[in-house]
Amino acid sequence: MDINKTQAGHFYAVGVGPGDPDLLTLRAARLIKDADVILAPQSKKSKTSLALQAIAPLVGDQEVVISQYPMTRDNSKTRERWGLLADDVSDRCRRGQSVVQVTLGDPLIFATSSYLMEALAEQMPTEKLHVEPGISAFQMTASCFNDALTLQEDRLLLMSATDLLAVENALEQCETLVLFKAAGDLPGLLTLLERHNLLHRAKLVSAGGQGEHEVRVADLSRWQRLDLGYMTTMIIHIGKRGWHEDVAS
Amino acid sequence: MDINKTQAGHFYAVGVGPGDPDLLTLRAARLIKDADVILAPQSKKSKTSLALQAIAPLVGDQEVVISQYPMTRDNSKTRERWGLLADDVSDRCRRGQSVVQVTLGDPLIFATSSYLMEALAEQMPTEKLHVEPGISAFQMTASCFNDALTLQEDRLLLMSATDLLAVENALEQCETLVLFKAAGDLPGLLTLLERHNLLHRAKLVSAGGQGEHEVRVADLSRWQRLDLGYMTTMIIHIGKRGWHEDVAS
Repeated sequence: MDINKTQAGHFYAVGVGPGDPDLLTLRAARLIKDADVILAPQSKKSKTSLALQAIAPLVGDQEVVISQYPMTRDNSKTRERWGLLADDVSDRCRRGQSVVQVTLGDPLIFATSSYLMEALAEQMPTEKLHVEPGISAFQMTASCFNDALTLQEDRLLLMSATDLLAVENALEQCETLVLFKAAGDLPGLLTLLERHNLLHRAKLVSAGGQGEHEVRVADLSRWQRLDLGYMTTMIIHIGKRGWHEDVAS
Repeated sequence: MDINKTQAGHFYAVGVGPGDPDLLTLRAARLIKDADVILAPQSKKSKTSLALQAIAPLVGDQEVVISQYPMTRDNSKTRERWGLLADDVSDRCRRGQSVVQVTLGDPLIFATSSYLMEALAEQMPTEKLHVEPGISAFQMTASCFNDALTLQEDRLLLMSATDLLAVENALEQCETLVLFKAAGDLPGLLTLLERHNLLHRAKLVSAGGQGEHEVRVADLSRWQRLDLGYMTTMIIHIGKRGWHEDVAS
């Protein structure tokens, strides 16, 4: 049996990468093409499903289900909504359908959709649940500038930029800091970086791969500030740890 | 002009994912197929190039150059060796060849091969240098267990496990810790995790995607220890930060 073929009655959480249709993996493309049902969760705030746009060339006669979910910081509401979706998915799988959920980026890195997997784990056997990794936004962001994210004994820390106090603490705890949702409080974040003399070591990509909406800034100390959207990822090269000298080769 | 087509005189650092040939991106596959030269750096300790194995189905009449490099913690030796390789690559590009360097995982995440990009940046114009992201070992490791790496305001820290004091400090500084090269001092690392009561929250994959050599351990407190190789990645779920309550929705 080819484990990478879409199997009847199975569920696949598939990462489709940052949005560019050719940044999907070969495996993701095959699973999507062969699926009975494509599930595209979409925030109520969004007009379109970017994940669905990313896989447009692969959509033929699969059933496409767009499932809206609320963007809320309320844990019980969040889990209730995803629980309902899990009921539908597990029901479809019991009837022998293969269901592929598409998620921008990687399904296990800051992906709201991983609540669905959590809910499904209570309803379906583990061997029928699969996750397929995808290129995360931070990898695409880094690749725009050719700079290594991390080498030797450097520490790479990934977090959202929503809590600036936590961001400030993190500056002491890693050599490279990746901030998701970096535009949430961009003025506050830029002021913080300026105070730590790190503006010239910070870069960002907003709406990466989304054509004319894409913004790339290689050095934030030389940037004319403007409004950016939700999907903004910042990379801050704080320093290099190198190889720790006390450690044997 | 299609920027994703392999262009004459250009260099591409391409991530090929963790080793499984169908975890390449569609773009990586196309760039490799269309290249004049495929460059596969290989550690002197390795008998084979795993990156080259991962792309075997894509190799036809391209010229394949295997370049051995020393695995040393000596920075000047490392840079000298990669500098010589950069001379060769930039010379080929000046003669109009397209050169694709293949790297396991992602070329910007703990990839020795990113020294080559650093050296090339001094010899070639930026617009002829490209990085294409690949699935990193830690993403594949996480996907084996279906558990979210990071959600909400969790911090995800990636580092090598070579300095156990730094690892111990990191346990206080993130919600999820990813350790590359986790088998370097595995007994020491396991003792450390036991002391922090984290063994049952730690999992690992060794030689992922390498057939019978692959080892998966979902819970390190229930594991019969054995020797593991260089390519061992550990994930430790220390806790969850959730949404920080003081932050507005």
